[in-house]
Amino acid sequence: MGGDHGPGVVVPAAIEFAKANPHVDLILVGDEGRVEALLGKAKQVPRDRIRIRPTTQEVGMDESPSRALRGKKDSSMRVAIDLVKAGEAGACVSAGNTGALMATARFVLKTLPSVDRPAIITTVPSLHGHTHMLDLGANVDCTAEHLFQFAVMGSELVSAVEGRERPRVALLNIGQEEIKGNEQVKQAHELLVNSSLNYIGYVEGDGIYLEDLDLVVTDGFVGNVALKTSEGVAKFISSSLSAQFKRNWFSKLSGLAALPILRRFKRTVDPRRYNGASLLGLRGIVIKSHGGADEIAFENAIYIAEKEIRANIPQRIGEQVGRHLDPTQYRETA
Amino acid sequence: MGGDHGPGVVVPAAIEFAKANPHVDLILVGDEGRVEALLGKAKQVPRDRIRIRPTTQEVGMDESPSRALRGKKDSSMRVAIDLVKAGEAGACVSAGNTGALMATARFVLKTLPSVDRPAIITTVPSLHGHTHMLDLGANVDCTAEHLFQFAVMGSELVSAVEGRERPRVALLNIGQEEIKGNEQVKQAHELLVNSSLNYIGYVEGDGIYLEDLDLVVTDGFVGNVALKTSEGVAKFISSSLSAQFKRNWFSKLSGLAALPILRRFKRTVDPRRYNGASLLGLRGIVIKSHGGADEIAFENAIYIAEKEIRANIPQRIGEQVGRHLDPTQYRETA
Repeated sequence: MGGDHGPGVVVPAAIEFAKANPHVDLILVGDEGRVEALLGKAKQVPRDRIRIRPTTQEVGMDESPSRALRGKKDSSMRVAIDLVKAGEAGACVSAGNTGALMATARFVLKTLPSVDRPAIITTVPSLHGHTHMLDLGANVDCTAEHLFQFAVMGSELVSAVEGRERPRVALLNIGQEEIKGNEQVKQAHELLVNSSLNYIGYVEGDGIYLEDLDLVVTDGFVGNVALKTSEGVAKFISSSLSAQFKRNWFSKLSGLAALPILRRFKRTVDPRRYNGASLLGLRGIVIKSHGGADEIAFENAIYIAEKEIRANIPQRIGEQVGRHLDPTQYRETA
Repeated sequence: MGGDHGPGVVVPAAIEFAKANPHVDLILVGDEGRVEALLGKAKQVPRDRIRIRPTTQEVGMDESPSRALRGKKDSSMRVAIDLVKAGEAGACVSAGNTGALMATARFVLKTLPSVDRPAIITTVPSLHGHTHMLDLGANVDCTAEHLFQFAVMGSELVSAVEGRERPRVALLNIGQEEIKGNEQVKQAHELLVNSSLNYIGYVEGDGIYLEDLDLVVTDGFVGNVALKTSEGVAKFISSSLSAQFKRNWFSKLSGLAALPILRRFKRTVDPRRYNGASLLGLRGIVIKSHGGADEIAFENAIYIAEKEIRANIPQRIGEQVGRHLDPTQYRETA
C-alpha cells in the first residue's frame, strides 16, 4: 500500500513479474477490495500463483517509525514482514516509508548474530557497468567497526548476486592520500587492509561513477547525500539538455534527429533499472523500492528479491560476518 | 607554480585577465626564468601592470601540509600568501595543493576574530542559475557552531558578490523531516532557525541542483563527497552520451546535426565557468583554482579574487560573524 502510487503500481508490476516467472508465487498484502479490483482489470493473471493477504491499515509516507511500529500492526508493511518472519514469504518488497520499513524489519526479523546494524545497499550505474553502494541512510553515525561490517555484508551480497568471486571493495573518502579523512574512515581503512576482503583502498566521490569497483562503503549520511546528489545532477543535466533542444525550430529539428540516440542513452542510465535497495544484515530479505517507482521500476525490485532468495543472502551474510569478526577462524580460512 | 600545468596555464590566464581589466595589477609569483619565457612568448602583454616575484621552491601536489609549511618558505604558494599578509597583494590565487594552501593561509594570515575555522566555498550550476556550497573539505568533523559560522560567512559572501540582499540558506541533510539527520545538523538547524539569516531549512542532495537556493551548508567531508560525486555523474553522463552518438553512421550523423545544441549545452554547464573556490574566514583573500584548470578556468578564479577584493570580503565577514555570535548585538540589529 506504500509509495507514491500504492497498489496502482505494485499490483500491475507483480502481475508482470508473475507472468515472466512461473516458478514464483506472490502474495499481495493490502486492501483486499483495491487489490482485487486491480487484479480483475488485468489480463491473463496467473491467479493460481497470486494470492491476497488482506490488511486494514497503511503506514503513511511521513509517519514516524516508532508510531508505525506501535500503532500499525495490521498495516500492509508490518504483515508483509511478519510473513517473512513466519517463513510464509521468502522476501518482502515495499515502496513504503523507509524509516518505518527499517524499524519494523529490525523489530520483527531481528539482526543477524554478530551484525551490529543493518544497512541499506543499492546498485548505481557506472562507466564500467554498475557498482553497489552502502549505507544509504539507515545509520547516520557509524564507527569504524560498523563500516567494516558494511563492507563484509556488501561484499558477500555482490559476490552472491553478481557471481563475482572477489568483489572490489572501496571506502569513500575525501582524498586518496592516507592523511585525509575522518577518524572512523581511517580506522575502517586499517580494518579493511588487514581483512581478507578484496579491498582496493579509498575512492573519492567521482570514483563511484568512473572507477572499476564493485562496492563503495560509507556511512548512511554521506551515502544518502551522494545518492541524492547524483539524482539531482542527472535531473539537472537532462533538463538543461532538453531546454537546449527546444530553443528554436533548428534545435528542435536537430533534437528530432538525435531522438533515437537520446532514447537509447536514456535507457542505459534509466534509474528504473537500478530500483530496489536491500536492507542487509537482517534475518530475512526486505527490499525497498523507491517511493516514486513506476511499474517497470517496481518489477525490478521484485527481481532483486528473487535473486536474494535464490542466493540465500541472510544466511551467507551471517556466516561471513561471523567469520570476519572471529580472527582465529578468519586466519584459518583466509 | 602549482596545479597540474603550473605556469603554462597560470601565466597565459593572467595575461588575458590583465588585458581585459586595465584597472588591475598582477604579481606572478614563481620561477623567474619560466615565467619570463612565457611572458616573452605572448603578444601585447601589458608589462607595466604585470610583474614577477621570483621564488626558488614549489609545493608538491601530494606534499603534506605540515612539510610544506615548515620546509617551503620560498615557495610560490607561501610567498604569494606573504604578499597578501604584507598588503602588497589584494588576494592570492593558486592552483596548488589544497591542504598546503589552507594550512599556509591559516598560519600566515590567521583566522578572523570569532571565526573558529576557515571553510572552502564554491559555486555550482543549478536549474535556477547557480548556488554556493560550503565547506568542501577544510573541516571533516564539524560541530553545530561550526556549521552555523559557515552559514553566516557564506551568506555574507553571496550577499556581497552576487548583490543578493538576503541569500536563501539551506542545511544539507538526508531528509526534510525534522526527525532525520545527525546531532550536529539538528543543532545547527536550531541555531539557524533562531538567527537573522534567511534560512529556508533542510535540503537533500538533489536539492543542490534542483531547488531555488543561494547557499548550501554542510561539513567538509559531506560537501567534498557531494561535489566530487557531482563531477563523477557529469563525466559518466557525458561519456555515455558521446558513446551513443558514435555507435554507427546514423547516430554519428544525428550527432553532427545535434552538435551545435550539444556545444551550447556544454557551455551552460561548463565547469570552467565555476572554477575558483574561496578560503573563507581568513584575514585575507585566497582563491583555490582546480588543479586541472585550463587557462579559461584559471582566469575565472582570478575574476573571483577581483570580486572579493572589491567587496572587501574579509572585513565584511569578520563583522557579520561577530554580530551573529554576540546575541545582544544581534537582537538590536535583527
